[in-house]
Amino acid sequence: MNKDENRYYQRKINYYETDQMSIVHHSNYIRFMEEARLFHFNNSGISYTDLEKRGIYIPVLTVNCEYRKACLFDQTLLINVIPVFFNGIKMKFKYEIFVEGDNVLHAKGETEHCFINKERKPIYLKKEFPQIYQIFLQWFENNKVIL
Amino acid sequence: MNKDENRYYQRKINYYETDQMSIVHHSNYIRFMEEARLFHFNNSGISYTDLEKRGIYIPVLTVNCEYRKACLFDQTLLINVIPVFFNGIKMKFKYEIFVEGDNVLHAKGETEHCFINKERKPIYLKKEFPQIYQIFLQWFENNKVIL
Amino acid sequence: MNKDENRYYQRKINYYETDQMSIVHHSNYIRFMEEARLFHFNNSGISYTDLEKRGIYIPVLTVNCEYRKACLFDQTLLINVIPVFFNGIKMKFKYEIFVEGDNVLHAKGETEHCFINKERKPIYLKKEFPQIYQIFLQWFENNKVIL
Amino acid sequence: MNKDENRYYQRKINYYETDQMSIVHHSNYIRFMEEARLFHFNNSGISYTDLEKRGIYIPVLTVNCEYRKACLFDQTLLINVIPVFFNGIKMKFKYEIFVEGDNVLHAKGETEHCFINKERKPIYLKKEFPQIYQIFLQWFENNKVIL
Repeated sequence: MNKDENRYYQRKINYYETDQMSIVHHSNYIRFMEEARLFHFNNSGISYTDLEKRGIYIPVLTVNCEYRKACLFDQTLLINVIPVFFNGIKMKFKYEIFVEGDNVLHAKGETEHCFINKERKPIYLKKEFPQIYQIFLQWFENNKVIL
Repeated sequence: MNKDENRYYQRKINYYETDQMSIVHHSNYIRFMEEARLFHFNNSGISYTDLEKRGIYIPVLTVNCEYRKACLFDQTLLINVIPVFFNGIKMKFKYEIFVEGDNVLHAKGETEHCFINKERKPIYLKKEFPQIYQIFLQWFENNKVIL
Repeated sequence: MNKDENRYYQRKINYYETDQMSIVHHSNYIRFMEEARLFHFNNSGISYTDLEKRGIYIPVLTVNCEYRKACLFDQTLLINVIPVFFNGIKMKFKYEIFVEGDNVLHAKGETEHCFINKERKPIYLKKEFPQIYQIFLQWFENNKVIL
Repeated sequence: MNKDENRYYQRKINYYETDQMSIVHHSNYIRFMEEARLFHFNNSGISYTDLEKRGIYIPVLTVNCEYRKACLFDQTLLINVIPVFFNGIKMKFKYEIFVEGDNVLHAKGETEHCFINKERKPIYLKKEFPQIYQIFLQWFENNKVIL
């Protein structure tokens, strides 16, 4: 697969991400999903650094990953992040993990999130940060159309 | 919670496992589950190092984790590994992650596995490694009783 | 080597700490040194969590490591931390990394540290936290005798 | 600093690379140096994957790092790798770690390496792999001129 389209987060696999089975250790896919998610935040005009400065934190509530084909050192990952649900309290993303030059889905995953403040209390975005709520809403709406 | 029972894998949380939200980064729970799983392999008379020497590898097919309460630096993890399914081709474990001195379930998860050889082809344990099959079977049977 | 003595920080090597060379990835030794250092802090009556609560942070200024013999999955690390210098502004530790059941030095290293507050400004312990200064001083003095 | 020149390895800092001091954990710089080193291998016509396929492994003998200014999440790293010594048996690199948009050296480091085969025995490149020896030699020579 050769995906130049913007919506794919792209990066090489590092040596230190392999294990003695000579494949990427499965825990690293959870990190790849985070990288891809925050890359797409940026692309949609949402800087995670800015959110934290305003006191908005977005922890992970659940994660799952299905490993279909091993990823190897020096391969280039191509990760598609699909925003699937957002209601101002929770949100959910799906992920498709490909490798450059190959048409196979190597892994797919999901993460669910909520919004909390510095004291780790839930935030209701629509009320407390209506502007940020609108940006997220827009992002999720736009992707719905694409899907 | 203070669980001295043998079945809990126990270890402290390291500084490098935290992130700037001042909690353990969610990807590390996947690693904790692996640590706990291999600890229980050992306790059940199965050395993962020996398995690999015989050409048996046990990759992760799926993983999921539900994060309920953040874990913090310097806390002591107590992880319960519950073998839930084994048929010689696939197996499945559940995990309960606690923290010493607190009665709350901090996280729970699941992993599914298969058995492959060095060429990454599936192994049918019962036929190819009947002795190891029996050890696994025994382990899963014993736990069924406990559950 | 079988070192039951208290001064050795002891823990097993995890699968996810290996790389495709089938040895522990060299970056992890820097993490092992941190684990061993904070373990010895605890043993000397210094809780790093407490220090941070009081606004004392101890970043690493320099690190070095010399790799002599590879460490492998499932081996048990035995790490000796030697406090070598402390003047209330900076401090320095040496590390000797062994593996259980083997008399060879697998790696040795050094770290240098300073003391800073939440605003990342240097702290002069002797003036600002005389009690903590005394605990550190005592620790470094005691070890000088042992050396 | 804005360095578009090819010789700088460039990549963003990930969230999972921070710790609860809200800076990049010091162990990750050792990984950044590896990433930058292998990037420059590629740029010099040396694929580390190809080397391993031929049975050439390049472990790290020593590493050191001096931390001058913390790196933060979302910053873009710019890493300069300087080949400083090569004799076919050992080699040495220096590293300068910058952050985009800032003229300060954030960290500098060094690594030393040797060449070994699958049995972990030393390789003398000049004799055993004269072509690869020439590519490395060329690379080190070219950089000497630049320095």
